Amino acid sequence: MFTLKGKEGRARRGSLQTPHGKVETPVFMNVATQAAIKGGLDAHDLKKVGCRVALSNTYHLHLRPGDEVIRELGGLHRFMGWDGPSLTDSGGFQVFSLAGLRKISEEGVLFASHVDGRRIFMSPEDSMRIQANLGADIAMAFDECVENPSTYEYVQASCERTYRWLLRCRDEHLRQREIPGAVNPGQLLFGINQGGIHEDLRIDNMRKIAELGLDGYAIGGLAVGEPTETMYRVIDAVEPFMPEDRPRYLMGVGTPENILECVHLGIDFFDCVMPARNARHGKLYTWQGTINIKNEAYKTDSSPVDPECSCPLCRNYSRAYLRHLFKAEEILGLRLAVLHNLYFYNSFLERIRMALEAKAFEKFRAEHAGRWTRGDSRA
Amino acid sequence: MFTLKGKEGRARRGSLQTPHGKVETPVFMNVATQAAIKGGLDAHDLKKVGCRVALSNTYHLHLRPGDEVIRELGGLHRFMGWDGPSLTDSGGFQVFSLAGLRKISEEGVLFASHVDGRRIFMSPEDSMRIQANLGADIAMAFDECVENPSTYEYVQASCERTYRWLLRCRDEHLRQREIPGAVNPGQLLFGINQGGIHEDLRIDNMRKIAELGLDGYAIGGLAVGEPTETMYRVIDAVEPFMPEDRPRYLMGVGTPENILECVHLGIDFFDCVMPARNARHGKLYTWQGTINIKNEAYKTDSSPVDPECSCPLCRNYSRAYLRHLFKAEEILGLRLAVLHNLYFYNSFLERIRMALEAKAFEKFRAEHAGRWTRGDSRA
Repeated sequence: MFTLKGKEGRARRGSLQTPHGKVETPVFMNVATQAAIKGGLDAHDLKKVGCRVALSNTYHLHLRPGDEVIRELGGLHRFMGWDGPSLTDSGGFQVFSLAGLRKISEEGVLFASHVDGRRIFMSPEDSMRIQANLGADIAMAFDECVENPSTYEYVQASCERTYRWLLRCRDEHLRQREIPGAVNPGQLLFGINQGGIHEDLRIDNMRKIAELGLDGYAIGGLAVGEPTETMYRVIDAVEPFMPEDRPRYLMGVGTPENILECVHLGIDFFDCVMPARNARHGKLYTWQGTINIKNEAYKTDSSPVDPECSCPLCRNYSRAYLRHLFKAEEILGLRLAVLHNLYFYNSFLERIRMALEAKAFEKFRAEHAGRWTRGDSRA
Repeated sequence: MFTLKGKEGRARRGSLQTPHGKVETPVFMNVATQAAIKGGLDAHDLKKVGCRVALSNTYHLHLRPGDEVIRELGGLHRFMGWDGPSLTDSGGFQVFSLAGLRKISEEGVLFASHVDGRRIFMSPEDSMRIQANLGADIAMAFDECVENPSTYEYVQASCERTYRWLLRCRDEHLRQREIPGAVNPGQLLFGINQGGIHEDLRIDNMRKIAELGLDGYAIGGLAVGEPTETMYRVIDAVEPFMPEDRPRYLMGVGTPENILECVHLGIDFFDCVMPARNARHGKLYTWQGTINIKNEAYKTDSSPVDPECSCPLCRNYSRAYLRHLFKAEEILGLRLAVLHNLYFYNSFLERIRMALEAKAFEKFRAEHAGRWTRGDSRA
């Protein structure tokens, strides 16, 4: 299902076939946690911003409206009106970051809903069943996302349990696919590599899960507070042990610079709430760097946020108008800013793919390095 | 500029020529107070929901971003990307409802901004100058919107002062139109009838302002807390004294039922924040009545909010999806609901116009009376 179309160093240009179409990689997945994009965007808006994969969340949709509800309504694609490729995160990360009163056992995790405090138990099988009900094109294995820092011993024991959970996920995933009336019988399953910041644990875990021949492999448990250089070091170490013929997904990453570096290290899939979250705070990405639209300098600026951009914001409105919407606390400001930043991210990945096709990725990377870590020069 | 195309009883089918196109009446103006529509809608969305006139506010835009800023950016149309007919309210109502520390004199009103407490003085001339800077197609005269109830003597004295202010508005409006480089040299001016709930004061005031030959006439100071029957009684009394050849605008009204009744009484223009505000609380208008989408009954309801509706919500999404968005507190829920309710209101006025053309308005009115005052049968 995954075709490796070309390489430049370790950087890869590929394509993943899913039940809802091909995903050209490297790709940035657009986050629709609760089957909606923050800032008031719907599935039609995702098309407009060039989204290639929509990513939703098992934990959130299990709590609200309930995966059985979504199954009854024909699955996540029909529910939210998105007909392109999709992925659901397993809920592991959210159980460990949002929920209260966690109690981990071999069987699974008991936790309290962050919505209403209700006690919920989630096993690997539960996560697979929920994801089968949602019916995204790619399901993620249920894992423990270990906090950084944790002791070597804790990470090791957690990795081993997550590996045992992965075997259970694989079995249940196969079983769910074969149930008559399955929402998405062609659903793929990605395993998740863990191991904290310990290279030997990462490599050992990666070797073991690679043998399972899953549809793809993710690196989880990074970008959770460790220094960026540590993240790059871990990816650099574990990447050679990831199967060449399977897509690689770095979960929760990241800035444009992070993406450039990680494509360089051999990563294919990315996702991050950052472009939408930054947009909601008025931080916008342009091809020249970032700007903060709330800046007084933009008060009477009739130019678009980015003259190089063709998004719904830049085609139609001035910086002055967007600044006004933010200062006047109009929701429209959030919406236009999120449309812009997602359009930027999707265009950015498009340009990375084009550069890879032209064997010019390293040139592109060198030209763009550091461009978005500088602040707004007018701030 | 106003053409009366036909009548059925006192109900009128007309057309007003403005610098940005014709307005077919009766019409509902869509409220974009701060040059944006609440719920995250932009000018392109206004086109999608069938908006015929966009209404913005002098007081709000004077405070933020400042009318001089908007003038510098080419005026309100260019600023917000709306190329259709537009109207700006004079700020009178907001000065008397939102601002603090009001002090009224013959010269104008001193008040404190509700945004930052800054002291601002606004005279009739100021309001006209600000509205000239904004450059909407229709400017409204600066009036005192008297509270209900007020003493007969206060209302009488206020009416007389507002009449003197109207003469100053007319003169300044003419002067502003003729200044070289005016944003909208074809801007129209509507006068506003006041008089509280006192029919004799209303009629006396209406007779006097009718003599000024303004481009249109509004009825202000109603729908501010008095019983609906009182509102109808005042309109019924004053309408015969409104010039037949000028459009009549009932400010801040209202429910679909109010609109039916007031078209029946001879009103042409309406505006109200109600459809957008109700949408944000989950109350949606359908051709069968209103529903509250947060109702448990819609949890797994795969049908559209209104099967008769062709809005962006009803064409694409289920009641269950919209309910989920409200329960999950996603901004997208507000946006889709506002799109729907504005689409409904604009369609409702479209059907009223069609009924008038077919001399079937009274039949339409009888068929629809009371339909939206009933609550959600499933609530």
